[in-house]
Amino acid sequence: MATIVFCCVNKTARTTARRCLISHLKGLPSPGTSHLPLSSTYSTPPSFLPGTRWFFKGFSVRFMSHGTAGRSAAGRTRRGALALCGAAAVTAAAVGFLANADHFRRAEMATKVSQAAVEKEEEGGILERCRGFMSPPVTDIGVLQERKGEMRTRMEMLIMETQAEFCKALQEVDGGKFKVDRWERKEGGGGISCVMQDGKVFEKAGVNVSVVFGNLTEEAARQMRSRGKVLKGKDGKLPFCAMGVSSVIHPKNPHIPTVHFNYRYFEIEEEDGSKQWWFGGGTDLTPVYIDKEDAFHFHNTLKEACDKHHPQYYPDFKKWCDRYFYVRHRGETRGIGGIFFDDLDAPSHEEAFNFVKSCARTVVPCYLPIVYKHLNDSFTPEEKHWQQVRRGRYVEFNLVYDRGVKFGLATPGSRIESILMSLPLTARWEYMHEPAKGTQEAEMLEVLRNPKEWV
Amino acid sequence: MATIVFCCVNKTARTTARRCLISHLKGLPSPGTSHLPLSSTYSTPPSFLPGTRWFFKGFSVRFMSHGTAGRSAAGRTRRGALALCGAAAVTAAAVGFLANADHFRRAEMATKVSQAAVEKEEEGGILERCRGFMSPPVTDIGVLQERKGEMRTRMEMLIMETQAEFCKALQEVDGGKFKVDRWERKEGGGGISCVMQDGKVFEKAGVNVSVVFGNLTEEAARQMRSRGKVLKGKDGKLPFCAMGVSSVIHPKNPHIPTVHFNYRYFEIEEEDGSKQWWFGGGTDLTPVYIDKEDAFHFHNTLKEACDKHHPQYYPDFKKWCDRYFYVRHRGETRGIGGIFFDDLDAPSHEEAFNFVKSCARTVVPCYLPIVYKHLNDSFTPEEKHWQQVRRGRYVEFNLVYDRGVKFGLATPGSRIESILMSLPLTARWEYMHEPAKGTQEAEMLEVLRNPKEWV
Repeated sequence: MATIVFCCVNKTARTTARRCLISHLKGLPSPGTSHLPLSSTYSTPPSFLPGTRWFFKGFSVRFMSHGTAGRSAAGRTRRGALALCGAAAVTAAAVGFLANADHFRRAEMATKVSQAAVEKEEEGGILERCRGFMSPPVTDIGVLQERKGEMRTRMEMLIMETQAEFCKALQEVDGGKFKVDRWERKEGGGGISCVMQDGKVFEKAGVNVSVVFGNLTEEAARQMRSRGKVLKGKDGKLPFCAMGVSSVIHPKNPHIPTVHFNYRYFEIEEEDGSKQWWFGGGTDLTPVYIDKEDAFHFHNTLKEACDKHHPQYYPDFKKWCDRYFYVRHRGETRGIGGIFFDDLDAPSHEEAFNFVKSCARTVVPCYLPIVYKHLNDSFTPEEKHWQQVRRGRYVEFNLVYDRGVKFGLATPGSRIESILMSLPLTARWEYMHEPAKGTQEAEMLEVLRNPKEWV
Repeated sequence: MATIVFCCVNKTARTTARRCLISHLKGLPSPGTSHLPLSSTYSTPPSFLPGTRWFFKGFSVRFMSHGTAGRSAAGRTRRGALALCGAAAVTAAAVGFLANADHFRRAEMATKVSQAAVEKEEEGGILERCRGFMSPPVTDIGVLQERKGEMRTRMEMLIMETQAEFCKALQEVDGGKFKVDRWERKEGGGGISCVMQDGKVFEKAGVNVSVVFGNLTEEAARQMRSRGKVLKGKDGKLPFCAMGVSSVIHPKNPHIPTVHFNYRYFEIEEEDGSKQWWFGGGTDLTPVYIDKEDAFHFHNTLKEACDKHHPQYYPDFKKWCDRYFYVRHRGETRGIGGIFFDDLDAPSHEEAFNFVKSCARTVVPCYLPIVYKHLNDSFTPEEKHWQQVRRGRYVEFNLVYDRGVKFGLATPGSRIESILMSLPLTARWEYMHEPAKGTQEAEMLEVLRNPKEWV
């Protein structure tokens, strides 16, 4: 949940912006069908980031078609008929999933999603790709088309696609519909929050995109960067752009784990006009009960996605995840981890983006097979009760430690509902709760107290 | 919840301490009857605070018999037959309650508690008073008897008495029993946590006493003091003693409000041997629905207790309370307030203690009549639902803003269960929850967004 969600719905007239946008919206889901009850104004168009020249290294490759092909022999061999250049990440993720397919019901489902993404990428047109989103993107489609090759456009398209793929996969399994809210941030940018509450399968599912820009103080810029690098601004101000997709899914059945993921991108301009950029993100699982097969599948899918980019990514980011999602006052990790990284600005802009793309495309194949596997598991009131106690710990982590939540709550103009949509629908705190020795609950705690290697 | 709860149960032998204590325990509740399943070791005895000479101004007055009599004409006139010197606070609180007695059922109950306290005070003996506690005090009774006139002894007796009176009053209305846990802090001191969970009336009721001492770093000392005064220690270390009683009560019925109170005392020794001391505390109410009569009763009872000490106390501490219990990211106060103060080191040690005593004695008459009034109120599932949403906000305040909780969670050796016993048994977070206009829920929110004067 280290995403940044700012907002302040600006109710002043945006007729020009709206008119300009509407021309791009033919075929896109309308505000009406997307459940936009409150803040269905569109985002502020063109004049965004005045005075900022965004670094654009002018790649001539087609948008989203610069893959990792050729770097991973293993990936290539496995890809087979799906070996489309530029879709390596998606495919590899799907392959990673298929390797364990016999353990999971309805395996083809996850593959289908990834295959659809591959096809969309091949189509290439911004407008075409936007048709599949949960809502028009935050940035005006005309602007995205003009700046098609720039990283901020490519990342915005990626996070919108990730949101749509994940939401659709969840809707398919649940049968319910996401409520889609568009919101604006007065100072620049906005977001799209998709929330499904009290569904058949999911107690609360939130998938949020935000794209914000403006000026940061030097102190705020320092806080945004986990390594706390000092950044020098013009008169203390640093023009920035931050965007990300973030999600937390709390299922009803205690045998289906909670999942969280977040992929984000930052650009900051320093006094001398030089740009700093970095990516961050991760995907992690919080089961209520340990299922070793699930844990292996989840971690292995992430590992395969990571391995195509660097052999050290999975081991390093797995450790980082265990360290980050740690409820210090309880001496427990929040869940069984996954991967987590921040400040990723190497080996190149292109490579870092490709890695993030691989990770984002791995969300559905990491999680959905686990959901399907446990969909019809029966559970006792005692198991539901233990789930509620674990939900309490989830709340503790999110409100006490999570950097994104803390930063968001402390930032004026934040959209609180989007930040706190990560909290479960219900939670429980019992005084001195400790599971009896030898129980499955005690086994879960043991794993949280001593993080394991799953792959 | 700005109390400080440190702990680390020291399992090393304490036979001497135990033997020494046992001789004082005849007639006191035994560990067995007090439900001490885990940490029933007794507190470290005599050698406490080595190298620290505690300021003791040598009052020759009888313990707890130096009242405010004579200062408040109003108080005196009202006291009538109960006008016992030194019991002014208790009596006035009871009188303040009686003024509204016709509005509340079983009014005599609260009076009875206060009357009992008055009688106990008159008896005077430490051992005699300890018989009524929920558990032997943290400090060895022999030590308390030796240092009977010192402020830390007087305060420890007051917080133990407050805990016992409140717990007994709650047990009487609920029919359930508090689970009593004694715990020790390795570095010095310990506490007594009384928790009743899933009772007939109370979902979760916690009343905690802690008495801790040791050395603080200069930074920690600065943080403990809300005005952030710089304190100079010997080699950076400051011997300190901190104690308090703290409680949060979450009832089941949404028409019975949650109450919180906390009264605490600090002593710190500076490099030159001089002592700094101060008191802090407050009592505040968090209803789920507004009941103006309850709000008046609660605030008026507090006001009458304050007014006997200084006419500015109630208005100032009422404002402070509204400012402190503010969920900034929601733009709401946590409840309808009450009083809150910190760093109280004036007009004199004696006067400040008497004020705190008045406040502590006001807890039962502030709250119990409200509990009895609504005991049999019927409620709908919708009302229960709204209570759960409000409980979520309570959790947000406690985990995100409360200074005591933050300090406790960040302090190694803290007893987490005692710090987090303030969290409700159950809570709920709904995305974009907003009550419909004109409903009682909307009326409640309006009050939280715009704090009112109730008296």
